[in-house]
Amino acid sequence: MARVLVMLGSASDLERVRPLLDVLARFGEPGDVRIASAHRNLEDVLAIVREAERSGVRVIVAAAGLAAHLPGVVAGQTVLPVIGLPLAVGPLHGVDALLSIAQMPPGVPVATVGVNAGENAAYLALHILALEDPELAARLRSHRAARREEIRARDRDLRREAEE
Amino acid sequence: MARVLVMLGSASDLERVRPLLDVLARFGEPGDVRIASAHRNLEDVLAIVREAERSGVRVIVAAAGLAAHLPGVVAGQTVLPVIGLPLAVGPLHGVDALLSIAQMPPGVPVATVGVNAGENAAYLALHILALEDPELAARLRSHRAARREEIRARDRDLRREAEE
Amino acid sequence: MARVLVMLGSASDLERVRPLLDVLARFGEPGDVRIASAHRNLEDVLAIVREAERSGVRVIVAAAGLAAHLPGVVAGQTVLPVIGLPLAVGPLHGVDALLSIAQMPPGVPVATVGVNAGENAAYLALHILALEDPELAARLRSHRAARREEIRARDRDLRREAEE
Amino acid sequence: MARVLVMLGSASDLERVRPLLDVLARFGEPGDVRIASAHRNLEDVLAIVREAERSGVRVIVAAAGLAAHLPGVVAGQTVLPVIGLPLAVGPLHGVDALLSIAQMPPGVPVATVGVNAGENAAYLALHILALEDPELAARLRSHRAARREEIRARDRDLRREAEE
Amino acid sequence: MARVLVMLGSASDLERVRPLLDVLARFGEPGDVRIASAHRNLEDVLAIVREAERSGVRVIVAAAGLAAHLPGVVAGQTVLPVIGLPLAVGPLHGVDALLSIAQMPPGVPVATVGVNAGENAAYLALHILALEDPELAARLRSHRAARREEIRARDRDLRREAEE
Amino acid sequence: MARVLVMLGSASDLERVRPLLDVLARFGEPGDVRIASAHRNLEDVLAIVREAERSGVRVIVAAAGLAAHLPGVVAGQTVLPVIGLPLAVGPLHGVDALLSIAQMPPGVPVATVGVNAGENAAYLALHILALEDPELAARLRSHRAARREEIRARDRDLRREAEE
Amino acid sequence: MARVLVMLGSASDLERVRPLLDVLARFGEPGDVRIASAHRNLEDVLAIVREAERSGVRVIVAAAGLAAHLPGVVAGQTVLPVIGLPLAVGPLHGVDALLSIAQMPPGVPVATVGVNAGENAAYLALHILALEDPELAARLRSHRAARREEIRARDRDLRREAEE
Amino acid sequence: MARVLVMLGSASDLERVRPLLDVLARFGEPGDVRIASAHRNLEDVLAIVREAERSGVRVIVAAAGLAAHLPGVVAGQTVLPVIGLPLAVGPLHGVDALLSIAQMPPGVPVATVGVNAGENAAYLALHILALEDPELAARLRSHRAARREEIRARDRDLRREAEE
Repeated sequence: MARVLVMLGSASDLERVRPLLDVLARFGEPGDVRIASAHRNLEDVLAIVREAERSGVRVIVAAAGLAAHLPGVVAGQTVLPVIGLPLAVGPLHGVDALLSIAQMPPGVPVATVGVNAGENAAYLALHILALEDPELAARLRSHRAARREEIRARDRDLRREAEE
Repeated sequence: MARVLVMLGSASDLERVRPLLDVLARFGEPGDVRIASAHRNLEDVLAIVREAERSGVRVIVAAAGLAAHLPGVVAGQTVLPVIGLPLAVGPLHGVDALLSIAQMPPGVPVATVGVNAGENAAYLALHILALEDPELAARLRSHRAARREEIRARDRDLRREAEE
Repeated sequence: MARVLVMLGSASDLERVRPLLDVLARFGEPGDVRIASAHRNLEDVLAIVREAERSGVRVIVAAAGLAAHLPGVVAGQTVLPVIGLPLAVGPLHGVDALLSIAQMPPGVPVATVGVNAGENAAYLALHILALEDPELAARLRSHRAARREEIRARDRDLRREAEE
Repeated sequence: MARVLVMLGSASDLERVRPLLDVLARFGEPGDVRIASAHRNLEDVLAIVREAERSGVRVIVAAAGLAAHLPGVVAGQTVLPVIGLPLAVGPLHGVDALLSIAQMPPGVPVATVGVNAGENAAYLALHILALEDPELAARLRSHRAARREEIRARDRDLRREAEE
Repeated sequence: MARVLVMLGSASDLERVRPLLDVLARFGEPGDVRIASAHRNLEDVLAIVREAERSGVRVIVAAAGLAAHLPGVVAGQTVLPVIGLPLAVGPLHGVDALLSIAQMPPGVPVATVGVNAGENAAYLALHILALEDPELAARLRSHRAARREEIRARDRDLRREAEE
Repeated sequence: MARVLVMLGSASDLERVRPLLDVLARFGEPGDVRIASAHRNLEDVLAIVREAERSGVRVIVAAAGLAAHLPGVVAGQTVLPVIGLPLAVGPLHGVDALLSIAQMPPGVPVATVGVNAGENAAYLALHILALEDPELAARLRSHRAARREEIRARDRDLRREAEE
Repeated sequence: MARVLVMLGSASDLERVRPLLDVLARFGEPGDVRIASAHRNLEDVLAIVREAERSGVRVIVAAAGLAAHLPGVVAGQTVLPVIGLPLAVGPLHGVDALLSIAQMPPGVPVATVGVNAGENAAYLALHILALEDPELAARLRSHRAARREEIRARDRDLRREAEE
Repeated sequence: MARVLVMLGSASDLERVRPLLDVLARFGEPGDVRIASAHRNLEDVLAIVREAERSGVRVIVAAAGLAAHLPGVVAGQTVLPVIGLPLAVGPLHGVDALLSIAQMPPGVPVATVGVNAGENAAYLALHILALEDPELAARLRSHRAARREEIRARDRDLRREAEE
């Protein structure tokens, strides 16, 4: 049973959220991915959210571009934490989606990440899961440590090259 | 039976849409005003839209500020024309609402007017109603003619003052 | 006799509005397309609008990029509903056109859709026509239902793939 | 016979262009001020421009806020130089007007000045007039020299205070 | 022992986050409030985060205006979920803070809420806490239900007034 | 002796102003083109402006990208009309140049055209020259008439195709 | 002999840079303040810069609003470090000045600080001076330490209040 | 021993700062380049800054994209002058980085250069070094003179071509 539900407003966003799905998979939390639109099949959005609540989903990630209403609509239906991922679709480069997702009215928050920041949407979901999963927390810490070593290695390589 | 339904996402927007309601009233189309939020009581939004369709509403105007989802959500529920009025609420001056309303995905249009342009939301509704109401069309034309004369009168006054 | 008039300020916009024309055609409302500029041949713009009113046009869609004046100028000449389609022409990505079209002064509304949202301009026109054309309304509802089924099918496919 | 025509789209802009009118008056070029709207009484705009051409107007200044179409529409009707003054009206602070005025399509330029920069609209008009009016050119040069001395005086005062 | 840590980069932000603190208090999660700056006393920021991890804090909310670095710096130090609240300080109305908080690099997410949206920062924290606190989840659901009834009551009042 | 002086802040802008030079050439006003930077060789900028004034230049066009200071600096040195052409150089798409050119302080106007609108910079220069050159004015009018016929021809072609 | 030269493009900016002057004074580097405009009396700007170089000025701070050319023009005249302070003057809130100052062409840098960030302009100047003035460096470090203690004290007070 | 320290938040920025490194190298100030992130290995950032202070570094340049915190965090740790270079990474074109770097709170300035303006970051560092290095100052002046001659040569070539 998946702990993360990933909702997309359009099948065309599937490629755009690949980094999000990759990070989730890498941490053993592949998540269920569902495509449903707040504008085209709202009733399915609502059903998916209700089913998610019943089936033990802990975090919902909703990705959308343009007038990105999906995350906000989902957030209105549940007290599960909802993460909104603005996608850079169309000529406004995702500024439209960023504002449509972040600027929610009082009482219905969406945890917004950066434009096209699919990886961060995944990590934020994992950080929330890790609150009740010490092993996942440990893996997240290890991963951070690994990336820290990576950046240190790059720094050392660079200095070695410079010295030569 | 009202032909225009005015939907507000929050009671606090009531004062902001006063010019919209005034224009509708002046043309004998007071409209029903309903307060319902896409985030707080979405089921009521849906019920109001269904009832509007049944009761013969012809045009829906939805006003919202911030991440203004109400117009788009309503537009997804009906093939009635939906007019979106972005309100300048909060520190971003309504740019957030303008983009959240105008940048709808393909297939679910919202007829967007300017930020805080309540009068224009009303006039747009009236222009649509006038398609099937020659008398209203005539009144809209008279009103335009009257405003034309007003601006001409102001111009004449100004020239007269200048000559003196 | 066409019920939709599509006005372009420049022949170079013809390709940009292809999705608009395609949607209109698919619904059997091909519309008349006219090229006339508020800056180069304003008198033709005015004549086209007057002729449109006489010939029974119900909705005018005007598309323009940059300082997109055509929709607003047309809106000032008629009480027919005017839909404005901002095009992303030049280095500002259509933000210029969006503001030039949406921010009309009180009394002269333009029903603005998103930047490059030609499909939505078409659907908005069709929604307005459908007010007096129950058959078109039915086709719009069927189309929405079809798209709803499409998105559901994509969702099912995705889940099936996930299960394998 | 005035050499500068100042056109306003709305009587409510009269106060906003006071600095423009003051500068023109100070240089003995009071200008004719006309109120006419590209949206409400376009035919008057056209008539005013034609009359201006006949009566020897040399420069037209058009001021407007929001979707500021007046300068562009005027520019399309004449080969006289047209100066556009964007006004900060409404919640977008004149960014809408700036883009609506500056981003004209090829072949129909508007000489745009800064947002609310009424004085500069006036000075630009005077600089153009001065091309054929050596005395005005001399007065503009004197005025600049005077302002230069003013700023030098302020600088001297400041240094004197600092020394004390 | 508090489960929410609220970090402010400056004592002057204390009044700006009052709605955040009020919501937390109302739900019996008053949170510890700490003032420490990523620029002035970074070592204290780090110590506070380490102490928070030890003492069982579950969610950190960091509020900041201008080049709002505090949330991101905190997020780099912990795998606890970090909520970033952009404050509208100074002439750019919080757009600077919104981008400084949301646009984090891959691997270090900050859960961003809207500009000045202190209430939503609080609710987001509570939603995360509620994952492991069914009673809090129930209270959040009740609160939502209460607000839903409030908005319904406002709607009913409005309709009653309209009928009279 | 040229009547138009075209100033570029950088040789790399030469290709960007090709449409400007083409329009000037087509109207028999090829203009002198000078490269001089307000930052690198300001003394040459000043000398070029003084020489332009002596040699009978009537209009100066200054093109620049980024923090586009050249037009404003030139405008401060002369009472000749100065046209500023903002170029879209670098990642901000010319918004930086547009604001750097248009937002001049009171008393030193720059006649700003759109971003990358080289043709309009040329036409604006020609319109100013035409004030004292009836033949040029006539050619500008003919050119406009020709473009009007072009757009009409495109419109006729389109309608003919539609009928077939 | 002052080591910091503060240049203002307009006497009206004097009040706006008060925090800048206060910080300089507090550190015993009152600086010379000069008013001279890149547009009104450029020759004085150049003379002031030359004199500054001769008299041993080490850092120049130039403050300006709108199309803020002064810092860039000064930077082109000297290899002394030039700090640019964008001021929020007029309806665009200093975004115009920020871009006009920061986006300088290659080879002529301006050290830009935030909009209205007069204090930071002063501190940046002091940090540069401190490179060759160990005592000033020590005072800057003490000042930072003092502010660190201040913020710690505020944090302690807050916690004490919370405990009571 | 290097006098300039160049800090990058990510190895992927190395190519983006190539122009910065090239300018430094050309002036015999190759600088040490270090990769360390304010989010991934903050302790290394702090250690690098402390080491830089000990080893006699005079200026630190920090480059970053997105929510570019590195320059500000570094600036909080030292009274050495810190230059911030915003990089255009991701869909917002570096506007995010520009604001994240420039809009620092009072007391902790970052000397910000333009987006992607790596050359200017280098020149600014050199100008600061030149304060205590008359030979470098002389080389910077020569370089400016050389570029001045270059632009003059381009101008002469252009005029020669024009005459032919």
